[in-house]
Amino acid sequence: MAHIGIGFLGCGNIGCGVYRLLEEQTHHIEQNEGVRFDVRRILVRDTRRARAAQIPQAMLTDRPEDVLCDPEIRIVLEFMGGEEPAASYMIRALSAGKSVVTANKMALASRWTDIVAAARQSGAGLYYEASVCGAVPILRALNHSLQANRVESVTGIINGTTNYILSRMSREGASYGDVLADAQRMGLAEPDPTADVEGYDAAYKLSILATLAFHQHVPVDCVYREGITHVEPIDIQCGRELGLTLKLLAVAKEKDGKIEARVHPAFVPDRHPLASVSDAFNAVYVRGHACGEMMFYGRGAGDMPTASAIVSDLICAASADRHALPAVSDEPCSVAEDWRCQHFVRMLASDEPGVLAAVCSRFAEHGVSIETVVQKGERDRQGRAQLILLTHEASERAVRGALSEIGRGVAELGSVIRVEGR
Amino acid sequence: MAHIGIGFLGCGNIGCGVYRLLEEQTHHIEQNEGVRFDVRRILVRDTRRARAAQIPQAMLTDRPEDVLCDPEIRIVLEFMGGEEPAASYMIRALSAGKSVVTANKMALASRWTDIVAAARQSGAGLYYEASVCGAVPILRALNHSLQANRVESVTGIINGTTNYILSRMSREGASYGDVLADAQRMGLAEPDPTADVEGYDAAYKLSILATLAFHQHVPVDCVYREGITHVEPIDIQCGRELGLTLKLLAVAKEKDGKIEARVHPAFVPDRHPLASVSDAFNAVYVRGHACGEMMFYGRGAGDMPTASAIVSDLICAASADRHALPAVSDEPCSVAEDWRCQHFVRMLASDEPGVLAAVCSRFAEHGVSIETVVQKGERDRQGRAQLILLTHEASERAVRGALSEIGRGVAELGSVIRVEGR
Repeated sequence: MAHIGIGFLGCGNIGCGVYRLLEEQTHHIEQNEGVRFDVRRILVRDTRRARAAQIPQAMLTDRPEDVLCDPEIRIVLEFMGGEEPAASYMIRALSAGKSVVTANKMALASRWTDIVAAARQSGAGLYYEASVCGAVPILRALNHSLQANRVESVTGIINGTTNYILSRMSREGASYGDVLADAQRMGLAEPDPTADVEGYDAAYKLSILATLAFHQHVPVDCVYREGITHVEPIDIQCGRELGLTLKLLAVAKEKDGKIEARVHPAFVPDRHPLASVSDAFNAVYVRGHACGEMMFYGRGAGDMPTASAIVSDLICAASADRHALPAVSDEPCSVAEDWRCQHFVRMLASDEPGVLAAVCSRFAEHGVSIETVVQKGERDRQGRAQLILLTHEASERAVRGALSEIGRGVAELGSVIRVEGR
Repeated sequence: MAHIGIGFLGCGNIGCGVYRLLEEQTHHIEQNEGVRFDVRRILVRDTRRARAAQIPQAMLTDRPEDVLCDPEIRIVLEFMGGEEPAASYMIRALSAGKSVVTANKMALASRWTDIVAAARQSGAGLYYEASVCGAVPILRALNHSLQANRVESVTGIINGTTNYILSRMSREGASYGDVLADAQRMGLAEPDPTADVEGYDAAYKLSILATLAFHQHVPVDCVYREGITHVEPIDIQCGRELGLTLKLLAVAKEKDGKIEARVHPAFVPDRHPLASVSDAFNAVYVRGHACGEMMFYGRGAGDMPTASAIVSDLICAASADRHALPAVSDEPCSVAEDWRCQHFVRMLASDEPGVLAAVCSRFAEHGVSIETVVQKGERDRQGRAQLILLTHEASERAVRGALSEIGRGVAELGSVIRVEGR
C-alpha cells in the first residue's frame, strides 16, 4: 500500500469537501486503488476560522512554504481560486517536482503557458479535471477517449449560475433582474455576479476545453464573450414559439486550421440534447469526425461534485508512473475572424406595406437568406409590430451589415441572438 | 517514436473501420500520442472476400496462430463477436502476454472470470470500452473518474435498435411489428432480431457496467431480462398522457450490499435526461454519492464510433507502463430478490360502481399506495373502460400480489410497466 503525502493550498468549501471525501472514502480508495493519502499541511489565510470539515488544528498553516517546501508532500491540491498567488504557488510546486491538482480555471486559463512549462520541465503531473464542469469528466474524455478523433466542435453549457437564471426566466417568464436577485438570495449567484453573468467564468473554461480539443493553445483573450444581462423575456418567449430554447453557450469550432471560440446567449432547438440541460446542471456536447455526437452531463459545481473530480485526479496523479501532458502546440492559434451561424433577429417595424419587403431586401443584398419570418399580432403604442426573423446559416459580418442598414430607418432593432445546433 | 505491432481477430465492419481510422489518423496519433501502430496480421474466415477497407492481401490469414503466436504482435484487437472462439483466442493472447482490446460484450460478459484471470496472471492489458455504448467512454468514467464515489445506480439506454423502434413507435403511434420490419429493411435491426429485442445485448452490457460500478462481478445470469416485443402503442400513448416516455432501460442499483440488475421496458418522466435520448443514440445515467447525477450520451454503435473507442483503448494499452485491472471482488454478488419502483398498470374494467373501489382495496391490502388513477373515456365492445394506475414506489412482489387478485374477476390486466427516475 502506497502512502502519499499531500498538501492543500486553500480550504474553503471545495477544500473541505475534498478533506471530508478523503476521510470518508479512505477504505474504499485503499481497497480499490491501492493507495492511501495523508494530508500533511493545509495553507489557509486564517488558521483560527471555523471550517466545514473537522481538520486538526496542527494541520493548518498560514505559511505557503509549509506546503510548498515539505519534502514529504508529493501532491499539492490548489483551491485558492483567483489568478494570484495561486498560479505562482502552482508553478513553485511543479518546479519542485510536486504534482498539482487544481480546480482553478482562472489561474489555469490565464497562465496556461507558464504553468504547463513548469510541469513539462520537471516532469511533475498537472491535473485539472475539476476546473471545467465539476464532476463531469470532459477533460479526461478529450484527452483519453477521443484521441483518434479530429474534434470538430465543442458546445457547452458550462456555467451553472447563468443556466439557472435562464432556466427560470424560460419557465416563469420572469425578468433577468428578478431572477438574479432571487438567485443571490438563495446563494446560487455571487453578491457581485459579474464573473458568471458576463461570461468570464465560461470563457476561462472554454479556453481550456478548446485548447485540449484542438491541440492548440486557445488563450482566453481569443474567446469572444457576451453575457446574459441584456436577455429579455420577450426574446425567450419568441424563441419558444419557434421551437428554440435560450442558453448561455460556450462554442468552439475548428475549420481549415482556424479556431473560433465564443461565449454568448444562443438559441438551441428544443429537441437538441443541450435544450433539456436545466438549472444548475452543466453539459458539453462534442462532435468528432469518428465518434459523431456525444454529450457529457452533470453537476458543474458544488463542493462534493467538485471534490469527486479532484479526488479522481489525485488518484490518477498518484498511480501514474510518468505524467503525460496533453499534446498542445505552442504556436499561437489562428482565430477565425468571421463565423457562420443562424441568427434570430427581433425588430419593431411599422405595419405598413413595403416594410417587410425593405427588411428582406437588405438581408438579400448582403447575401443573407431568410428561413422564417413571423410578424406578431400585438402592436405597441406607435402601432409597430414585433417582427421575428430566422436567417439561414450566414456570416456574422453579413448579418451585421444588413442590420446596420435596417437600423437606419427601416425598423428598430430589438435583439440579435445566434442560433446553434439546428 | 514507439512502433507497436498489432493484430486483428476478425475484420467485419468494425475491424475495417478501425483499419481505416488507423490509416487516416496515423500522423495525428504519432504527433499527439507519440506512438505508431503497425498492423501485422488480420485473422479472417475467408481471405478472398472483398472488404470495406483496402487491406493488403498478405496481411490476411485464416490461421489464428498467425496472430496469436507472432512475437512481434504486442496488442491483439478482437472483432469476431460471439462467445467462441473469441473468448478462447483472447485468453490465449492474454496468457501469451499480449494485451487485448475488444468490442465483444457477449464473450466478455459470459466469460468474465476466465478472461480477467488470464489478464491478471500475465499482467497483460485488457481493454473493452467499445463493448458498451460504442464511442461513449462510460467504462473509463466508471474506472478512472468516479473512483471516489459509491455508485448508487446506473441506468442506461444501451441498445440502439430497441431505442430506434421505441422512438418511432412513440412518434408515429405505429405497432412494434411494423417498425421492426421497417428497421430490418433499413439494416437497423438484424434479420433475427432476438438478441436486441429480447434484451440479451443490453443484459451483456449491463453485466459489464454493474461489475465495474459496484466492484463486484455481476454475472449476466443475475440480470433480469424482459424485451420489447409485447409493448403496445396504447401503453406508449397512455404513458405520454401522464408525462412519461417508454424506453428499454438497463438498471443496476446497489443498496445494503445487495445488487439488482434488470433490463426491461420502463417509463421515464419526459423531463428526465434519458427521455430525450432518441433513435439509435445510447446514454448512461449514473448516480454517485459525491458526483451526484451524470449522463453520458452518444452513438452506441456504427463502425466509426466503435472504432473511435477501440483506437482510444489501443492508445491507452500502448502507453501504459503497467496495466491496472479494475478492482472487482471475486465473491459472488448478492442479488436483491425483490425491488422497489413505481408501476404503471393498465387494465380493462367494467364501468360499474364499486370496481374502482375493489381495485384500490386490493392494492391497499398489499400495502401498495396509488399516486394517480385515470379512467379513459372510450369503452370497448363489452362496455369496459381502460383504467390506468400509477403506484407510488412499492415492492415488485406486493404489486404482483395485488395484481394476481385483481386479475381474478375484478378487472382484466392489460400491462404492467415499471417507472424509473421520477
